[in-house]
Order: sequence, then structure tokens, then C-alpha cells
Amino acid sequence: MSDPTAPSLDFWYEFASTYSYPAAMRCDAMAEAASVRLRWRPFLLGPIFSAQGWLTSPFNLFPAKGRYMWRDLARTCAQRGLPYRQPHPFPQNSLFSARLALAVPEDLRADFSRAVYLAEFAEGKLISDEKVLRDILATLDLSAPDLLEKANSETIRENLRGETEIARKLGLFGAPTFVAADGELFWGDDRLEQALAWAQSHQGATG
Amino acid sequence: MSDPTAPSLDFWYEFASTYSYPAAMRCDAMAEAASVRLRWRPFLLGPIFSAQGWLTSPFNLFPAKGRYMWRDLARTCAQRGLPYRQPHPFPQNSLFSARLALAVPEDLRADFSRAVYLAEFAEGKLISDEKVLRDILATLDLSAPDLLEKANSETIRENLRGETEIARKLGLFGAPTFVAADGELFWGDDRLEQALAWAQSHQGATG
Repeated sequence: MSDPTAPSLDFWYEFASTYSYPAAMRCDAMAEAASVRLRWRPFLLGPIFSAQGWLTSPFNLFPAKGRYMWRDLARTCAQRGLPYRQPHPFPQNSLFSARLALAVPEDLRADFSRAVYLAEFAEGKLISDEKVLRDILATLDLSAPDLLEKANSETIRENLRGETEIARKLGLFGAPTFVAADGELFWGDDRLEQALAWAQSHQGATG
Repeated sequence: MSDPTAPSLDFWYEFASTYSYPAAMRCDAMAEAASVRLRWRPFLLGPIFSAQGWLTSPFNLFPAKGRYMWRDLARTCAQRGLPYRQPHPFPQNSLFSARLALAVPEDLRADFSRAVYLAEFAEGKLISDEKVLRDILATLDLSAPDLLEKANSETIRENLRGETEIARKLGLFGAPTFVAADGELFWGDDRLEQALAWAQSHQGATG
């Protein structure tokens, strides 16, 4: 979706977030079909969770909710024909993959991100493992040494901190969250359809 | 839906729960269309929340999530043409209305419950106010004195405690939750369609 006059929608995602996986796997195709420009914006939930006293995922803190989430996620993936394997450990450390997602060329960010999600939620891999990330970069014909160095740079670190702070100020408290040009929030993979409809009908000044 | 051989689905709801309102307003019609027998089962979330250290609604404990929920609820109601007014205070004390829902004749439980939700989420009334509940009973041609006395009986108190304990043992952590005959859980108004489809295709021994 390269038409700059098309309505836009920001897709805020976190690599450790479970429902971000099915969202990442369908959002580009659905945005394309809806003629909405989708902007992929990785961020970290950790700082947002820890600010409210959570030192791990709420799905670990609240076991009944966690059990339900794993079951619901498995059902969602099965229904959509998405490969799925519960990641261990959970949550995974998503810091470096998030930095890398900001370091890769913007037009490859979605491809890179989907590959990270597949490694984590379909292939049983650790996304904190540099080898896993190198393999993904190689598949995309990207230079792993250059991008690993860039991902470790202060510029990218600051970029990710800034994005996470923007997310917090927008009112994000979970992922995935879709944010329309007028600031309207839609939380969860299951709100993607509504978010796209909103973006189409409420094209803001920045849209 | 009175066919005893039809697949069944339990609708677990809590009168203080926000998303139980839109669910309550649509679930009977949708179950009827799906030829699924729906069983209305009021319970209390308070004991389940307090067991994990929450002394009020998570929407109050986590303000960003709460702000989002009110907005999302308003959007959901608007989309469905449901009247909506944010209740104050929130959460309301739902204990007596839950007892009353168990005290009214079973074939009027859904009508009574929808009237309670409308009072709370559409008419700005306090469902802990006995006058509000008396008016609802009168509208249903039920004897308020008899039912208020029955709702205060040890039998009904024990019934509600028992239902809440069953809910906890089933793994419920929020409302509304739909539970199929085989124990499969579907949490949230937005999972009603999936729950009905599951009930149709996984009719259990008790279904």
C-alpha cells in the first residue's frame, strides 16, 4: 500500500506478545484489501508492564488467564491454518529483535518481523539467540554483521526507547494495538477489522 | 430453544461486568439462530478477583486498560444500536442482583438479567438499589416481596456461592465466559460466535 493519500493505521507490536503473532501474519494482507497504509511499529511492553508493578507477563502472573490464552491462541492459529508451537520460555526476551526490527530497512520490517514471529511461535526457536536472528537476516539477503552492529547503536536504542514512550503516551497497555491517525486505539488481533474500518471512515489530518 | 437434544452452552455472567452487558443483549437471539440451548449462569467475579489480590475491577487497577475498555464498550454498543451510559460508580455492587437472578423462575432469568443490565448500563441506575430491582420484578409481573425474601435465603446464598466456586474450578477469570458441554472456554462478548460454533460441532455427553 504505497498510495500516500490512503488512510493510515499504525500496527504496534511486541515480539514477546502472543496475540501479536496472528495479527502480524494477517494484517498486511487485510490492510491491502482495505486500501489502508499500515505502519509497523515495534515497541517494548516490559517498561509499560513494570511501571504498573508487573515483572513478567500478566499471563504468568494470572495463571487461569494464562491457561485460557494459550488455548485461545492455539484455536486462533488452527482456525487460520497458522503453524503454532507454544514458546518456552515465555515470555521470550524481545529486546534485541525489536532493535533489529528498527535497524532493518523500513520496507523489509514487516518481512523481518513475520520471520521473527514464525521462529518464535511456529519453529520453537529463541528469538534472543543471535544465530536465529542472523539466519533470518540472511534469508532476507541482509547483511547480518552490519545490522547487528546498527541494532546495538545508541541511535537505535534511543529510537526504541522513544517508540515505547510514544506507545505509553498513546495509552497502550498491551499488544498488538492498532492506532488510527486520529488516535483511536484498537487493542488485540481480534479488533483488526474494526481498526481498518475506523481508519477508512475517520481519516485524520495526519492520515 | 427448548429442544433438549440441541447442543448446549453455558453463559456465565456477572452483573458488574461491562462486556457482559452487550453479550447479554445478543446471546439469546444468536443462540436461537444457531440452534444452541443457552443456560444463563450468574456468578460473582469479586471472590475470584480478590483471590488474586485484586480488591476492585482490573479496569480501575490499570487505568490505561480501563480508559480503553470504556471507549471500546461505547463503540461496541454504538455499532449494535444498544443504548449506553457509563455507570457510576464502577463497579456496582452486584451481589443482590445476582442472588435475585437465581431466585426468579428459570424461564424468566434472561429477561430479568437483561433488565438489570439495561438499568445499569443504559438508564444510569444503581442495581444495588432495592427500588430499582423491585421495579424490574414488577415489569416482569413477579412478586417483589416473595422474591426479595427468597433472594436473601440461605438456599440462594449458598446457590450463588456454589455457582461462583464452579466457575472458578472451570477456570473462569473474567466475564462473560461461555462454556461448552465439553468444558471449552470462550472469554468475552467477542468470542460468542466461536463459542456457538464450538457447541454445534463438539456436542459433549452432557450437551
